[in-house]
Amino acid sequence: MESQTIIHPLVKRFQEIRKHSEEICKPLEIEDYVVQPIVDVSPPKWHLGHTTWFFETFILIPNFPSYEVFDPQYNFVFNSYYETIGARVIRTDRGNLSRPSVSDIYRYRNYVDEKMKLFLESDFMNDSIATLLELGLNHEQQHQELLISDIKYILGHNPLFPVYKDNIELQEKTSGSNKMLRFSEGIYEIGFEGSGFCFDNELARHKVYLNDFEISECLVTNKEYLEFMEAGGYEDFRYWHADGWNWVNENNVKSPLYWHNIDGKWMYYTLSGLKEVNPNEELCHISFYEASAYASWKDMRLPTEEEWEVASPHFQWGKRWEWTNSAYLPYPGFKKEPGAVGEYNGKFMVNQMVLRGASTATPNGHSRNTYRNFFQPALKWQFTGIRLAK
Amino acid sequence: MESQTIIHPLVKRFQEIRKHSEEICKPLEIEDYVVQPIVDVSPPKWHLGHTTWFFETFILIPNFPSYEVFDPQYNFVFNSYYETIGARVIRTDRGNLSRPSVSDIYRYRNYVDEKMKLFLESDFMNDSIATLLELGLNHEQQHQELLISDIKYILGHNPLFPVYKDNIELQEKTSGSNKMLRFSEGIYEIGFEGSGFCFDNELARHKVYLNDFEISECLVTNKEYLEFMEAGGYEDFRYWHADGWNWVNENNVKSPLYWHNIDGKWMYYTLSGLKEVNPNEELCHISFYEASAYASWKDMRLPTEEEWEVASPHFQWGKRWEWTNSAYLPYPGFKKEPGAVGEYNGKFMVNQMVLRGASTATPNGHSRNTYRNFFQPALKWQFTGIRLAK
Amino acid sequence: MESQTIIHPLVKRFQEIRKHSEEICKPLEIEDYVVQPIVDVSPPKWHLGHTTWFFETFILIPNFPSYEVFDPQYNFVFNSYYETIGARVIRTDRGNLSRPSVSDIYRYRNYVDEKMKLFLESDFMNDSIATLLELGLNHEQQHQELLISDIKYILGHNPLFPVYKDNIELQEKTSGSNKMLRFSEGIYEIGFEGSGFCFDNELARHKVYLNDFEISECLVTNKEYLEFMEAGGYEDFRYWHADGWNWVNENNVKSPLYWHNIDGKWMYYTLSGLKEVNPNEELCHISFYEASAYASWKDMRLPTEEEWEVASPHFQWGKRWEWTNSAYLPYPGFKKEPGAVGEYNGKFMVNQMVLRGASTATPNGHSRNTYRNFFQPALKWQFTGIRLAK
Amino acid sequence: MESQTIIHPLVKRFQEIRKHSEEICKPLEIEDYVVQPIVDVSPPKWHLGHTTWFFETFILIPNFPSYEVFDPQYNFVFNSYYETIGARVIRTDRGNLSRPSVSDIYRYRNYVDEKMKLFLESDFMNDSIATLLELGLNHEQQHQELLISDIKYILGHNPLFPVYKDNIELQEKTSGSNKMLRFSEGIYEIGFEGSGFCFDNELARHKVYLNDFEISECLVTNKEYLEFMEAGGYEDFRYWHADGWNWVNENNVKSPLYWHNIDGKWMYYTLSGLKEVNPNEELCHISFYEASAYASWKDMRLPTEEEWEVASPHFQWGKRWEWTNSAYLPYPGFKKEPGAVGEYNGKFMVNQMVLRGASTATPNGHSRNTYRNFFQPALKWQFTGIRLAK
Repeated sequence: MESQTIIHPLVKRFQEIRKHSEEICKPLEIEDYVVQPIVDVSPPKWHLGHTTWFFETFILIPNFPSYEVFDPQYNFVFNSYYETIGARVIRTDRGNLSRPSVSDIYRYRNYVDEKMKLFLESDFMNDSIATLLELGLNHEQQHQELLISDIKYILGHNPLFPVYKDNIELQEKTSGSNKMLRFSEGIYEIGFEGSGFCFDNELARHKVYLNDFEISECLVTNKEYLEFMEAGGYEDFRYWHADGWNWVNENNVKSPLYWHNIDGKWMYYTLSGLKEVNPNEELCHISFYEASAYASWKDMRLPTEEEWEVASPHFQWGKRWEWTNSAYLPYPGFKKEPGAVGEYNGKFMVNQMVLRGASTATPNGHSRNTYRNFFQPALKWQFTGIRLAK
Repeated sequence: MESQTIIHPLVKRFQEIRKHSEEICKPLEIEDYVVQPIVDVSPPKWHLGHTTWFFETFILIPNFPSYEVFDPQYNFVFNSYYETIGARVIRTDRGNLSRPSVSDIYRYRNYVDEKMKLFLESDFMNDSIATLLELGLNHEQQHQELLISDIKYILGHNPLFPVYKDNIELQEKTSGSNKMLRFSEGIYEIGFEGSGFCFDNELARHKVYLNDFEISECLVTNKEYLEFMEAGGYEDFRYWHADGWNWVNENNVKSPLYWHNIDGKWMYYTLSGLKEVNPNEELCHISFYEASAYASWKDMRLPTEEEWEVASPHFQWGKRWEWTNSAYLPYPGFKKEPGAVGEYNGKFMVNQMVLRGASTATPNGHSRNTYRNFFQPALKWQFTGIRLAK
Repeated sequence: MESQTIIHPLVKRFQEIRKHSEEICKPLEIEDYVVQPIVDVSPPKWHLGHTTWFFETFILIPNFPSYEVFDPQYNFVFNSYYETIGARVIRTDRGNLSRPSVSDIYRYRNYVDEKMKLFLESDFMNDSIATLLELGLNHEQQHQELLISDIKYILGHNPLFPVYKDNIELQEKTSGSNKMLRFSEGIYEIGFEGSGFCFDNELARHKVYLNDFEISECLVTNKEYLEFMEAGGYEDFRYWHADGWNWVNENNVKSPLYWHNIDGKWMYYTLSGLKEVNPNEELCHISFYEASAYASWKDMRLPTEEEWEVASPHFQWGKRWEWTNSAYLPYPGFKKEPGAVGEYNGKFMVNQMVLRGASTATPNGHSRNTYRNFFQPALKWQFTGIRLAK
Repeated sequence: MESQTIIHPLVKRFQEIRKHSEEICKPLEIEDYVVQPIVDVSPPKWHLGHTTWFFETFILIPNFPSYEVFDPQYNFVFNSYYETIGARVIRTDRGNLSRPSVSDIYRYRNYVDEKMKLFLESDFMNDSIATLLELGLNHEQQHQELLISDIKYILGHNPLFPVYKDNIELQEKTSGSNKMLRFSEGIYEIGFEGSGFCFDNELARHKVYLNDFEISECLVTNKEYLEFMEAGGYEDFRYWHADGWNWVNENNVKSPLYWHNIDGKWMYYTLSGLKEVNPNEELCHISFYEASAYASWKDMRLPTEEEWEVASPHFQWGKRWEWTNSAYLPYPGFKKEPGAVGEYNGKFMVNQMVLRGASTATPNGHSRNTYRNFFQPALKWQFTGIRLAK
């Protein structure tokens, strides 16, 4: 009788997620893996190395006795922001490093993936490591979304406007009206609950008191935002935060990211190349400042993250990261983990705004209505959009 | 029978507050009125002119038909941030303007004060203007506190360490222990209530749900903060926000503002000159980043502004502006006023943290436990301190 | 018979020059003494203190045994760039110092002037100190010219355009044509010769070989420069150095300094207030980049400093500092003095261009046709002009 | 009888020079072609494209009627600084462009090279185009030297210190003493003379008058420079220009570029990897500021470019670009060509210092003793060295 290889389900999940990162990069030229046009955008090869380094550093090195480090200098190159783990290439320098080469990094991935398979099937594996593994896989998924937004930035800021892949970023018509959903004053509970994975910043689940509020069923469309633009929204300080108004003027902002007015027509760079702006599509690539100014022009406001979470079962979400008017702060009872993984979220809890939902760039299986994404209010290279409240 | 002059109580209050600004400036040399060593610190003569401009622009010009503007160019010089009111000298340029001279500005004050007296006693005065007048007086009181912190910065950054006035900033011993006050989970109400004056950002009064929390009865002292410093608090990234850690390193921060280690002894610039740091005094002049790092080192946290307000009747406050871990955001139901006065608070509601309480620099009658002060997290020239929570 | 006090001629010369600095400042308000709107412009009170510090530091302290320093901290405040003499307030911070006050500085001047008188009449005085004294007096005269250009900058950048003094910067008509003077190829000698004072950078006198050249008898007028402006000179890169073209675009330069186009008419801030541009007056306040672009537009060039010096006896000069196309470099045989006075000139011999002549702001008795003035090519707050060559 | 293909000698020279650029890049990984770690260093792929663009733009397009542009957008990408030719990618952005890819650029080169062959053999070719061709070939040779210095910078600033090629940058022992060669006062002629190619900045040949001078036969060695370092040369302001001293302190400069003190031993990155500093090798990679400070420490000076050119037949040169104390300025009689090629040199004649000689990175046949190289005084990534004078 023949013995059959049974792939451990954890190994399978590990391998699928790891493979997906590489699939995202398949359409790239080698040159596309290397550049870093702004500090927030990392070179794709850096993402591929950094996610690998995470498994090597936090799982293999401390837990797999026979493991030999692939290259001791890679820690310096691929550490992102973990001060606990030692010196690192400063973020603005990532795009200056031509080496390790892309093929070196794929070799690094293969090496670590093979060792991970051996490790996951070994007796060294245990439950507490499984928790860390899950964090590593969710971490890789976060970088998959960053890979897509960073690739879009790299190609979309090239004067040749190269196509990444045909027929993606489908410009589906949005059905639905501007209907407002109403919620009544009272105590609600928010925060993650259940047995699956969540990030530390989604805890503890806790009660909040909300006033009566209304929230729109649909996201703002390009057509609606164009009305704001045409009504002079970018030229009227009254709609803007003081910081937002400075940002508009210092950067001469006139439109969402990737929009180009060519011969009087608004064009939009998508991963399938330059297209005409589709008025019915959900608006994308705006900063918090723009989201907030738009809401103010509509005499409305952005929802708080608590309102959003409470209302979320009643509307469709997942196409755009939705700016809320909540600053990124710890929930009551939030506890930073000890050690390097404790640097994951807590230390960013100042000067950023919360986004809720998910986007077309978010990998499958990586979204929850308790998920708290966060960025500085001026950033707009993520797939961000607007839902109104009042 | 002789007629007696009765001073209108509003005129009296107006004159007292106006006079107090000038009393604050009495110890200054003319040169001290002029400089602006950093963008956040305005020249004292600018404060004196700007507060006057407020009454001229928002009360006299629109409401007092016979009023003649003192000098039409002053609008350009003394507008602070009111975009509605037209062009203004950019903030970083205030310290480059030697004119209007100090005596010109005092003439401007006298002129406006006389007209205000006539106006307040005239039939043009009415209730809705009284509201605006009250805003103007509170505005002037805010600038009185800024005058003190700005004067301290100007003199305290002069290599000659000049004395402003002897025997102020009294270094009283603090009595009291590190006792924690406990509060139970439940619904509380916060926000201004009553008939007196409050700023728009203190409204609407609303319910919040708080978890169990504890808050310390006393503020952190210099002695306690020195323990953090001596334990290497400024060298250990684990206690800091990522932005805070960058701030520490880029600015080589090693201590609170105005502290100088001279021959191994910590000295502190006060408005009465350089003194030895008093270990029992409440710590002063620290940034939000430092407050938060200190709390983290103590394995505690800063209170939220809701916790602070709920607990405030149970402790003494008023010596230091106390950093909270709340971002400056609108309350539920917050409504921006139309027109220029609507620019007062709302447009700053991003990228700043809330401070609660008041300080030794706050004018009498200008503090409430619903008052929401706010600054960027790196700023430390205000009289700021730390109260812990958990 | 009555004894008469004979004032030593050196004392007389010392006192006259010292007094002249104070006379320049007489029309100022105290506030005008304090500000530093750009790094190149020092506060007038700093000039008054710094020139005094020069005599105290280089003459009195080392040579007058009984001399007691006025205030030991002043060295820190008033040292300009002498690294030999210790720490100093960095140049950008001068405008942040309200103290020492203006009256303190006048007291400092009086104190040092009295001691200098005693010293100059004492037996401690000798020939080598006389040389140093002469340097100190020429140094003070250089600062007299800076006082005038800095005062013009301070008042001319104030939105109120204050008048310094009526009827100065007389706008005399310029007579004279665009006649070119011709000089023949051959060996010439340049550099200082004779027994009076000169700066070290004017030595050694040396031979140079010049090709045939022509140089214009008159300076470029406002009218001529307006033709360049109206011909689009500021918009056409062909006339500009690459660095100059960047400078024009980054700073949006459109005209000489102090020119304002008000209701279609070119106005010019003078020390007597805002006046209409006089077309026949010699152009003033242009950078090397502008001078060079203008010459290029005329299909001419700027003279070298050698050509200028050789030709100078044949034309009138002294109204404008004339940009040459010579970089500021040492003459053959230039020797840096040992010690702090050796820092006077040599260390600036890179990245600057030479100006020759003198200006209406130069004090009497402080000009020679061998004098080498020098500034960075973008600076234009001195009284600079253009003489053409080919 | 068989006809034989005779390759036109101009075609042969064209092809050899074009091929050499590609040979320089052969050892590179594709990733190495892409990055731009500092503004002065261009991505190798940019050099390959830009030199090709030069032939396409200045020779083929205007002169070869049948020529079809390879890609009209390449003008935007590969224009370096020719304002005449239209918009261009700003220099700091070159390293952000992943496209055109390396293989696209090699296709571009092949396409243009084939067309150039056809053109050079056609009747459209004539003498005035031959002059332009020669300029294009010399231009490509200049970029060959830049390719080498830029590749060294890219690899030498990678934490992995990759090897470009083994056994290059041979560290030959230098024979020769510190002998000074003496030259007598008098008239000399400098500037290009003869019938071959030279750049416009080498003209006109003209007479100069030089004083007696001495110049060293050999270049400064690493050993000699180490003595300066060990004597505290980088810590003593007396040897430095004021701008140089600021540069040292702002950038914390402690050694030549590519030097690393590892465990107390000075190591040096070469294109063959990290090696121990060879004391007998000629010093390399220093800025003008360092060259000048070293000379000052030796109580000597740098030669002027005139002295260098006069003395050059009497010493060996060609290993290092030698900083002179001459600013880059036009020779008497210099004439800027009309049109875009006139932008080649003249517009850079301010704020730069002249280097004379050539270096181990200079291509064969691209050096003359009248050649005037020029860079800003702080730059040190070229193969620069020091020859002393007095």
